[in-house]
Amino acid sequence: MAEADSTLTKTQAGPDIVMVGSIGIDTIQTPNERRENVLGGSNSYACAAAALFARVGMVGVVGNDFTDEYRALYTKCGIDLTGLQTAEGKTFRWSGVYEDDMINRRTLSTELNVFGGFAPQLPELYRPAPYFLLGNISPELQLMVLDQAKRPRFVVADTMDLWISTAIEPLTQMISRVNMLMLNDSEIRLLTGEQNLLAGAQQILNMGPQYVVIKKGEHGAMLVTRSKIFLVPAFPVAQVKDPTGAGDTFAGAFLGLLASRRMVSERNVKEGLLYASVAASFAVEDFSPGRLMELTRDDVDSRLLQLKKMLSWD
Amino acid sequence: MAEADSTLTKTQAGPDIVMVGSIGIDTIQTPNERRENVLGGSNSYACAAAALFARVGMVGVVGNDFTDEYRALYTKCGIDLTGLQTAEGKTFRWSGVYEDDMINRRTLSTELNVFGGFAPQLPELYRPAPYFLLGNISPELQLMVLDQAKRPRFVVADTMDLWISTAIEPLTQMISRVNMLMLNDSEIRLLTGEQNLLAGAQQILNMGPQYVVIKKGEHGAMLVTRSKIFLVPAFPVAQVKDPTGAGDTFAGAFLGLLASRRMVSERNVKEGLLYASVAASFAVEDFSPGRLMELTRDDVDSRLLQLKKMLSWD
Repeated sequence: MAEADSTLTKTQAGPDIVMVGSIGIDTIQTPNERRENVLGGSNSYACAAAALFARVGMVGVVGNDFTDEYRALYTKCGIDLTGLQTAEGKTFRWSGVYEDDMINRRTLSTELNVFGGFAPQLPELYRPAPYFLLGNISPELQLMVLDQAKRPRFVVADTMDLWISTAIEPLTQMISRVNMLMLNDSEIRLLTGEQNLLAGAQQILNMGPQYVVIKKGEHGAMLVTRSKIFLVPAFPVAQVKDPTGAGDTFAGAFLGLLASRRMVSERNVKEGLLYASVAASFAVEDFSPGRLMELTRDDVDSRLLQLKKMLSWD
Repeated sequence: MAEADSTLTKTQAGPDIVMVGSIGIDTIQTPNERRENVLGGSNSYACAAAALFARVGMVGVVGNDFTDEYRALYTKCGIDLTGLQTAEGKTFRWSGVYEDDMINRRTLSTELNVFGGFAPQLPELYRPAPYFLLGNISPELQLMVLDQAKRPRFVVADTMDLWISTAIEPLTQMISRVNMLMLNDSEIRLLTGEQNLLAGAQQILNMGPQYVVIKKGEHGAMLVTRSKIFLVPAFPVAQVKDPTGAGDTFAGAFLGLLASRRMVSERNVKEGLLYASVAASFAVEDFSPGRLMELTRDDVDSRLLQLKKMLSWD
């Protein structure tokens, strides 16, 4: 049975954001480089990005091969690990190869290990948190997190083709309970059967969320609400070193910024998405969430200013 | 020998913009529809888009199968045809099929016909024009146009992989003489050998132009100067019917707007690119430049306002 890791610093008041997702050890090969056993998993990226803006509590599971060095990377950037379970066995591992375009990738191996038996358990301290990110895990587990949340103010969820194809019922239920769903073009088409993305997004809005974010990778994203569209361009990156985790970083930074503003307004949502775009641009400049974990808020603010200049037509 | 078509209305003062490129008759098949013998060619799209903003003179060649109905489409939207030659033979014809993604296409047939022997001849009235668009024809022909221009203020050029691979010398010479080069990612990489697009764009700036526009199709475009980047998002289109000519429309609308402003400033260049994005979004909503030719300036202005709203973060 998994056991909560309570050896690390806790924030007194509980986190602003609770994030759940995978935590893994990755081996990644790009056309130029190969990195073995780097910190990975959706939650590593999302939490590192969110921690730039707000107090983050991480919910997930690792095996007993997960060293203190990895843990130190999280705590160094202020992520609370009270919600991180350590289970008997090995940590989730993934390895993949990117093609020359640095977009398409092939999975070489996936070992679920302890992640296969994961059941998210929120520490008491986490349950009153106002912001939740349901990273890309099965919708059943995402619902399990929601059921433990006391009064969530804003919930963002991610999903993937696998759950759309194999778990549509719990997925639909999950979607009905979140404020924002983030997904890419092919996922929208698969979920709604609509070729037209805008029509697909409207269909998802009818399922419950107030916001749909269509992720377009290196081409940015688009926010769709019932009455509005907001275009979120990607910050142009000189050299992509490793695109892994860009989408998770995007989600994490968005929610981090929103939490830091203490109010969910259209303006804050938009600003959060621009910050998300900037954070993702940093994430792809290096392997693992390493680059994110070194960043200061000033670095991010300064690139946000650059992005706004690149978008300003007068 | 080709002969100038002088049967149509001439503007008294000569056009603001002279545009050269292909004029053809297309047969296009998309996953949903097939259209035979529709007006096509880069110059048809570019001129139709530019004519929304300024007086346009068209330079090109058609065969004696090119009916008055086609000509009437041009003149109806105000395009001057003094520079349109009619040669003995058949008009350039192209046919292609789009895949389900509405992006990738396969050429079924290309018949150069009279376009194969095309040598652009600028009517006297066109030579003092301040704005020139060198559409995607061989760089030798593009240079021939430049040599006939008396005092060009702003020249935009397009090119393609074929000329980069087979005519690099005249291409380099042409590039050194234009103000703005528009090309897509793969063309930048082929021309400069740079994988990194921003570095590639800087290399092209070193060849002469003050502006490089990187076209990204449905994902918009990016303007790169020596000191700045401006992001030009695509206007989200509900339903793409036929993507043919979107890039030519983009170029034509850009230059049309710039010409209408009578001054080349950074602000006008940026505004021109936003208009270009909007014009391209209309172009793909129907086959041939038909949709463009029906548009009013008000339609375009109103969509520009929508685009600006979609980009405004406060």
